[in-house]
Amino acid sequence: MKKPDIVILGAGYGGIMTAVKLQKMLNMNEAVITLVNKYDYHYQTTWLHENAAGTLHHDRTRIPIKDVVNLDRVNFVMDTVISIKPDKKKIKLENGELYYDILVIGLGFETATFGIPGLKENAFTIENINSARLIRDHLEYNFAMYQHEDEKNPGRLNIVVGGGGITGVEYLGELANRIPELCEEYDIYKTMVRIINIEGESAVLPGFDPQLTEYAMSSLESRGVEFITGGIVKECKPDCIVYEKEGKETAIPTYTTVWTGGVRANSIVEESGFEHNHGKIEVRPDLRAPGYDDVFAIGDCALIMDGKTNIPYPSTAQIAVQQSETAAHNIKALVQGTEELGEFKPSLLGTVASLGNSDAIGDIFNNRKLFGWKAVIMKKIIDNRYLLKLGGFSLLMRKGKFNIFY
Amino acid sequence: MKKPDIVILGAGYGGIMTAVKLQKMLNMNEAVITLVNKYDYHYQTTWLHENAAGTLHHDRTRIPIKDVVNLDRVNFVMDTVISIKPDKKKIKLENGELYYDILVIGLGFETATFGIPGLKENAFTIENINSARLIRDHLEYNFAMYQHEDEKNPGRLNIVVGGGGITGVEYLGELANRIPELCEEYDIYKTMVRIINIEGESAVLPGFDPQLTEYAMSSLESRGVEFITGGIVKECKPDCIVYEKEGKETAIPTYTTVWTGGVRANSIVEESGFEHNHGKIEVRPDLRAPGYDDVFAIGDCALIMDGKTNIPYPSTAQIAVQQSETAAHNIKALVQGTEELGEFKPSLLGTVASLGNSDAIGDIFNNRKLFGWKAVIMKKIIDNRYLLKLGGFSLLMRKGKFNIFY
Repeated sequence: MKKPDIVILGAGYGGIMTAVKLQKMLNMNEAVITLVNKYDYHYQTTWLHENAAGTLHHDRTRIPIKDVVNLDRVNFVMDTVISIKPDKKKIKLENGELYYDILVIGLGFETATFGIPGLKENAFTIENINSARLIRDHLEYNFAMYQHEDEKNPGRLNIVVGGGGITGVEYLGELANRIPELCEEYDIYKTMVRIINIEGESAVLPGFDPQLTEYAMSSLESRGVEFITGGIVKECKPDCIVYEKEGKETAIPTYTTVWTGGVRANSIVEESGFEHNHGKIEVRPDLRAPGYDDVFAIGDCALIMDGKTNIPYPSTAQIAVQQSETAAHNIKALVQGTEELGEFKPSLLGTVASLGNSDAIGDIFNNRKLFGWKAVIMKKIIDNRYLLKLGGFSLLMRKGKFNIFY
Repeated sequence: MKKPDIVILGAGYGGIMTAVKLQKMLNMNEAVITLVNKYDYHYQTTWLHENAAGTLHHDRTRIPIKDVVNLDRVNFVMDTVISIKPDKKKIKLENGELYYDILVIGLGFETATFGIPGLKENAFTIENINSARLIRDHLEYNFAMYQHEDEKNPGRLNIVVGGGGITGVEYLGELANRIPELCEEYDIYKTMVRIINIEGESAVLPGFDPQLTEYAMSSLESRGVEFITGGIVKECKPDCIVYEKEGKETAIPTYTTVWTGGVRANSIVEESGFEHNHGKIEVRPDLRAPGYDDVFAIGDCALIMDGKTNIPYPSTAQIAVQQSETAAHNIKALVQGTEELGEFKPSLLGTVASLGNSDAIGDIFNNRKLFGWKAVIMKKIIDNRYLLKLGGFSLLMRKGKFNIFY
């Protein structure tokens, strides 16, 4: 009898964890497991803002797939997914095609620009290692250009972050740490550099407790970050960003707009004909796609409503990792035909947002709030726990964050 | 009686050394010494190619003026010279004006582009700390862009060096060392990067012994450098460089053309009405400008014919430093009115050109040739001797090059 083909698309938080679990849960003779990813490494999306600021090297953020996946057990295909044909059970790749019996879609997010003119062409995004590394270099390049040009262009020293969600705020924190170093490197006075956040709401970090939001804004403002709240980005040009506030349009000269204002599921999901809700597959409690008993969706590609609030659960690394456990368990049940499929039950522990290397805030489950060094430590514990879970003690030792202030 | 005002323009090799010597040779009550420079640091022009490759940090190349000039003794004015009015004994600065009784012009070189279209706008030059730092960052930025762009653009990985003089060849050597590091940092295969030199003559390093030239080219070729000799640069565009060879025009796609093909004296010299020879002041044997007994010119701004060969002495750091001794001696004679003015007699010791951090060639006076590690050591000895001369033991310890292979 043919062994079932299990194909996992994407080696993000959900995808790689599903592969790591399945390689332990299933025997060689039970199934063929194939992991498809664009790069030969997994990366921690939640650390990318540090790479983009230049405060952490991207090699700390990425983990070679071969270091955590047993390649004797799992086939790894480095390729880009073009489309999914669920009715034919086929995946079209840039350089080939794959057949599956069971599919896991963990293709992650892409940036949503909401049709704002110029954003796609002129703004930077913190999406992957390549885009984060480019932002780091773009900042440095503009500082070097500022010093080199005879006619000084202050726009080169204005850094605009569009959007005040977690990624935006965490990036502002890293910038606040990084700018003094850049000023030292490029002989520029700190006071000439502006770090500006534009957020549509009346405060950053929507969804966080107001007391935490206020703490975060004060902490960042004390380190030179300017907040423009209630400002709607109208257009991004190569040399400026235009926003509207209280009916008035203002242009800020800048060559560096980093857009963190929105994400959506990878558009392959929508294009492949799955029933979707704003681009995400509204999965059943067992994480399978409606109408397809052989297709699981996890992470940013999946949508699950919180029954109590009727708001979808947030697309966090925490939830993606928890989903990988349910997905792996259910795939094992399908393959072995022994158990009932289990339901996904998220365990929400709360959220911690860093504010640079020495400050953070945490909105912990059960209404506990954390500030300052306690939140900094909590953040590192979360990051380190993930590494331990993914690659054991040796991975933790190689990539973990142990220095309290780094 | 009014103390004479000695004004030194430029803190390059010749200017700063003249200031350092004069602060020891003259008493406070004998003269007022003023040093004018665009930056608050002196830099070693002959090390800039290392900063431009990213193999040496620019802080190693530059020396704060206050570290070597006694500011209780010498007035330092950080400003840019706009023009010299020798008949009025005045210097126009960007932010003011200075009167002098005795002037030393040590304003250095600027790049000569020989009217080649686009070179001024689109090529980079290794002229100062700012331009070298920009090249370093431009290389990195293009590697990052290459990885980020969906459509791969091989031109981003082509680096073209125009001109095969000492600076060009030394820069090629540093690039050959640096590229493997950049490839590691940006996940790029080494074989995809091209380092290309375009030189009009049939070999690089004109003036050097042919055996040395051949050694240099072989050494660089073995590390991946491509030489296009007999190639004339016709145009530099933002995305390519066009050269002609044997009547045929070829365009190489590149975003990084570093032009090392020619230098000329700072054009302020010519514009200020001095009698000049290709922009340089053909100084008298005592280094004074023809017709002006109160104006000395040194370094790249001065031209001195070698009586034997009827070819001008080269504009090297070696000669600029030697000229500062004659200039300082003669200024002292003018101020004190006691001695005869001395004549400048260059002592040509030879030239060493590095080929990266572990190879070099040396054309030493009396027809001695050096290759490989002996030349590497000789190069470091020359660099270290200068530091000792300029700022004594403490400067040597801070900025010297002691690691044989670094």
